[in-house]
Amino acid sequence: MSVFIKDYLVQKLRDRGVTVEEMAKLLLEIQLGHMPYLTYEQCVESIERVLDKREVQNAALTGLAIDSLAEQGLIEEPLLTMLTSDDGLYGVDEILALSIVNIYGSIGLTNFGFLDKAKLGLVGKINEKRPGKVTTFLDDIVAAIVASGASRLAHRSRDGYEDSDE
Amino acid sequence: MSVFIKDYLVQKLRDRGVTVEEMAKLLLEIQLGHMPYLTYEQCVESIERVLDKREVQNAALTGLAIDSLAEQGLIEEPLLTMLTSDDGLYGVDEILALSIVNIYGSIGLTNFGFLDKAKLGLVGKINEKRPGKVTTFLDDIVAAIVASGASRLAHRSRDGYEDSDE
Amino acid sequence: MSVFIKDYLVQKLRDRGVTVEEMAKLLLEIQLGHMPYLTYEQCVESIERVLDKREVQNAALTGLAIDSLAEQGLIEEPLLTMLTSDDGLYGVDEILALSIVNIYGSIGLTNFGFLDKAKLGLVGKINEKRPGKVTTFLDDIVAAIVASGASRLAHRSRDGYEDSDE
Amino acid sequence: MSVFIKDYLVQKLRDRGVTVEEMAKLLLEIQLGHMPYLTYEQCVESIERVLDKREVQNAALTGLAIDSLAEQGLIEEPLLTMLTSDDGLYGVDEILALSIVNIYGSIGLTNFGFLDKAKLGLVGKINEKRPGKVTTFLDDIVAAIVASGASRLAHRSRDGYEDSDE
Repeated sequence: MSVFIKDYLVQKLRDRGVTVEEMAKLLLEIQLGHMPYLTYEQCVESIERVLDKREVQNAALTGLAIDSLAEQGLIEEPLLTMLTSDDGLYGVDEILALSIVNIYGSIGLTNFGFLDKAKLGLVGKINEKRPGKVTTFLDDIVAAIVASGASRLAHRSRDGYEDSDE
Repeated sequence: MSVFIKDYLVQKLRDRGVTVEEMAKLLLEIQLGHMPYLTYEQCVESIERVLDKREVQNAALTGLAIDSLAEQGLIEEPLLTMLTSDDGLYGVDEILALSIVNIYGSIGLTNFGFLDKAKLGLVGKINEKRPGKVTTFLDDIVAAIVASGASRLAHRSRDGYEDSDE
Repeated sequence: MSVFIKDYLVQKLRDRGVTVEEMAKLLLEIQLGHMPYLTYEQCVESIERVLDKREVQNAALTGLAIDSLAEQGLIEEPLLTMLTSDDGLYGVDEILALSIVNIYGSIGLTNFGFLDKAKLGLVGKINEKRPGKVTTFLDDIVAAIVASGASRLAHRSRDGYEDSDE
Repeated sequence: MSVFIKDYLVQKLRDRGVTVEEMAKLLLEIQLGHMPYLTYEQCVESIERVLDKREVQNAALTGLAIDSLAEQGLIEEPLLTMLTSDDGLYGVDEILALSIVNIYGSIGLTNFGFLDKAKLGLVGKINEKRPGKVTTFLDDIVAAIVASGASRLAHRSRDGYEDSDE
């Protein structure tokens, strides 16, 4: 069931222009300074493991659903305008993102905040508003998945894990 | 604006069968043991002040919108089934509720958890499933508002505040 | 390293009168209603896996260290009195506990709040103040570990995991 | 009481080389892009209001106490080495900081993460390790106070508050 939901989530992200490969590249970029021998393949693997987690799936699917429903105008005012304008005081997008990051412990918080504020790479690209598109949750979810991938790598690097997932 | 949104939220809660008065009664019930001179009027006031907060409004409106969209079948699977069955592993309902409780500090956490688990009074009533009704978020939001009202009273009782809100 | 720290934490908890076995019994008590075939051995296993997590170890060791330093009078006022009196408005104890619970997702929140408020079993026993003893963090940490053990079981029960840890 | 604790906290921060004035300057720097008419005086006021909050005081005092006890070697191993080396996987420092930020809602999260990662101004200065000094909690607490000051200003700017605190 959880595997089916993961595939569905990966497809949904792709429909919004976000691939596992691009998230892995951004992860490599932010983590390489701390882990010089890190490979792109390990980053793909880390993003995949994050996407395996039920809590990640539930938070991400909920956020993507809200973006999509807002885009279709199916959400009532005043919430609709907050969502379509990506109101900086809305905050529920950061809350869902935080719930993803927390699963890998508090060390992911700063990576998430940095990605979200500095709008690096993919996260910045998502934030370039296009007419009619609602990406209020999408950018935070992607930043949270990448930050979680970084936390997971940092924990495992220390532990010398090889083949079992934490 | 914030006042307009509050009125809208109070109306939305009433549409779902939850009034400020009932939340105040539940608040009085759980807090009277700690504050023997607490009155019903102070509890109404505390619920009102919690509902004034933008973060409370945004989290509550988002949760109520999801419940309502699920009820109308406007959310895609597999999320729809998680919502209509109030899947115990879904978790996003607790996340939104926690974001409400956190505004009044961590002391609200245990009150929230207790209300949500023990299903006291109003919260229990909401949880009695009725065919076609989706209250996945509603019960947690109500428990969070009442727990926040209790935290606010506890903080102010200590501080001896009289007429300004924190 | 992480294994060494776990053994140290288990010893520290035992020094404070809390054993893995007692936490497992409390876990069995609160979870048996949801999982009728749950065994005591599975509960011991679940508590052990929670204690394997670095974030759990760090939060727990920090909390136990503060309790112990307060007991020895090594913490300055006004913090010392907040700790020795288990001031209900202190809140940092709940914050550390929440960071443990969050690792297993938001579904542990209500179990934590319930255990902490209802002071069931072991958690209630810890809360019976004894002269000179500071257990401001201990009770919340124990409630958080047991609540996390319950969340872990709930997730795994659904997933049909058998031998790999999440 | 809360006022007394605030004065004590301000003094403790000053003893560690951090003043309200410097925090206000950093706040002005990060917020001026969003609020072009923001003044230094408003930033001082905002930092002061954040420091008035009991939850901020409790979390900050606890973190500063741990730094200080570690500096004096009064904390047992293995925790002592995590603290004196500012171990990136420790995480409890970010947890306490998050509890400060959360009081002003989730919009402070990204500011906190950015300040903490980019090590801007004062936060960067704190992070320049000096022999014998432990600042594991200090940098996160300062970043959290400044990020909270920014959230408070953002909320109030929208609301058109004039003289009452939220």
